[in-house]
Amino acid sequence: MAGTEVTNRQILFKNFVVGWPQESDMEFVTTKKKLELREGQKDVIVRVLYLSCDPCQRGRMRNSTDSYIPPYTPGKPIEGYGLGKVILSSDPAFNEGDIVSGLMGWEDYSYGFRLVKIDDLALPISYYLGALGMAGFTAYVGFFRICEPKKGDTIYVSAASGAVGQMVGQFAKLFGCRVVGSAGSQQKVDLLTSKFGYDEAFNYKEEPDLDAALKRCCPDGIDIYFENVGGKMLDAVLVNMKVFGRIAVCGMVSQYNKEVQDPIYNLNYTVKRRLKIHGFLQSDHMDVQPEFFKNVIQWFKEGKLVYVEDIADGLEKGPAALIGLLAGKNVGKQSVKVADP
Amino acid sequence: MAGTEVTNRQILFKNFVVGWPQESDMEFVTTKKKLELREGQKDVIVRVLYLSCDPCQRGRMRNSTDSYIPPYTPGKPIEGYGLGKVILSSDPAFNEGDIVSGLMGWEDYSYGFRLVKIDDLALPISYYLGALGMAGFTAYVGFFRICEPKKGDTIYVSAASGAVGQMVGQFAKLFGCRVVGSAGSQQKVDLLTSKFGYDEAFNYKEEPDLDAALKRCCPDGIDIYFENVGGKMLDAVLVNMKVFGRIAVCGMVSQYNKEVQDPIYNLNYTVKRRLKIHGFLQSDHMDVQPEFFKNVIQWFKEGKLVYVEDIADGLEKGPAALIGLLAGKNVGKQSVKVADP
Repeated sequence: MAGTEVTNRQILFKNFVVGWPQESDMEFVTTKKKLELREGQKDVIVRVLYLSCDPCQRGRMRNSTDSYIPPYTPGKPIEGYGLGKVILSSDPAFNEGDIVSGLMGWEDYSYGFRLVKIDDLALPISYYLGALGMAGFTAYVGFFRICEPKKGDTIYVSAASGAVGQMVGQFAKLFGCRVVGSAGSQQKVDLLTSKFGYDEAFNYKEEPDLDAALKRCCPDGIDIYFENVGGKMLDAVLVNMKVFGRIAVCGMVSQYNKEVQDPIYNLNYTVKRRLKIHGFLQSDHMDVQPEFFKNVIQWFKEGKLVYVEDIADGLEKGPAALIGLLAGKNVGKQSVKVADP
Repeated sequence: MAGTEVTNRQILFKNFVVGWPQESDMEFVTTKKKLELREGQKDVIVRVLYLSCDPCQRGRMRNSTDSYIPPYTPGKPIEGYGLGKVILSSDPAFNEGDIVSGLMGWEDYSYGFRLVKIDDLALPISYYLGALGMAGFTAYVGFFRICEPKKGDTIYVSAASGAVGQMVGQFAKLFGCRVVGSAGSQQKVDLLTSKFGYDEAFNYKEEPDLDAALKRCCPDGIDIYFENVGGKMLDAVLVNMKVFGRIAVCGMVSQYNKEVQDPIYNLNYTVKRRLKIHGFLQSDHMDVQPEFFKNVIQWFKEGKLVYVEDIADGLEKGPAALIGLLAGKNVGKQSVKVADP
């Protein structure tokens, strides 16, 4: 395989983005590529199979180095979390044919970074991109490690049917919490209660008063808020938190396309209610990963978990899928299928 | 003593306050009072000796029950943390002549609540109102329990020469942190470095750009922020926090007289930097109090701690002292001396 020239479709990043990104900020191209491992390092080339669309990718379209991960390079493929099959490897940890997850370019053939070999392929392969991938692990770390849950707690999850939210809600329900969620369409709200086991749910776009909606669904207040959206929702949640409440900040997707963030006015409740607000990234908690794989695979096998995905078929559909995710058009975990395993 | 009629000077609360409180929102009166324990309860009457002026008292001037402590009652004396001498007691825990700290009215003779007997009077008595009282205990709990300090951490303290701030800075220095503080006058800034051992300090009123001031004093970023002020300062701090930084929210004195809180824009840094923002109240951590008394009394005896107080002499000076505190006119811990022990 080494030295072979292949046809390599790519999604190139065109320009740094201010405000809402457009599909035209990316470009689908077909190129030729010679498959060659780089010398002087442990290197892996994968055939990309599935790519994950994640809100955090918006941050990498910004011309800013003030984050935990560098920005995209104009003229190069965008990258993200994905699944691939190893086709060339100088890293003894990976053999040709291995299925791996990790960071890779949005193209047919890519160098892989921070790869993890998937040993137990008992579940549908796309699950390893979401429920058993970065999103599921984010939900697991966030809920079990950051939220400090207690049985009987009321947890409220925003973006509750998304890749992370649907897992958080189910983990919380299995753990013994009362689970309330919000999403941006009736279809998603129906999913929350009919499929993911949420006790109550509301469509935030149909609520003129978020504070009133939260008081209706959480009349005794909120013990845990799993924060995915930020902005006005966070402000409404703060005044509804119970004493000693915890807010796990996973992300703030409503803010990612704003050059000036929405103002937050109610942080005085951190003292009144003795709140803990805790931002986290799954990658800081890799020690939890073995437990995560073990438990979540078992819970799926026992039928205790479900997963809803929204898979765009074909690399060329990637830009629309990613832009759609930022606007909440997806129903369930948004990903892009690039090739069959 | 029971049944005696005494002259009882009082500071009455006149009206609920919107915006900045004025001295005229309180009234100094001289009344007569019959000293009588109430039946059916363990009751204590104290001769009030010292009263503490605390920013949290502003909250009790608001017509709102949305806090951890009820509002003041118009027509009744304001109350707060103070020192008193027991003159009548039906509570077996307290005897006539005991010196106690706790909640009491701003008057000569008051029922006492949540009292603690002071056994070891080795230090100046007023210290038991501040350094060894609610403020010192707040600093102790906040620093040792909430801030999760590590040796070598850079800690930044706002309102750093105040009742709480001066103790936090000294605890942090004893613990082995690099300590940076801000205050609102050159006199206070000088105190920080010359008296309390702060490594660096600045006058926030003279800084046109708080972000630049923080970058100058904390060039490698901030591990711990001890939050006393809120508002623009918090927003400037957020972007200067290091990864895994902790913000202990003790109070937000810059916001207490605002009907709408200043907006905060930089909470997206909670994820970028994986920050923990933790609001707390000392009264939730009473299990730490024996350790606090033991350590802090010993550190004072060893000359490792100092304390700067600003004592108004006479109950009638109380309203001006309390209003002055909210405007930052005090230098060090503001209290009111009512009577000699």
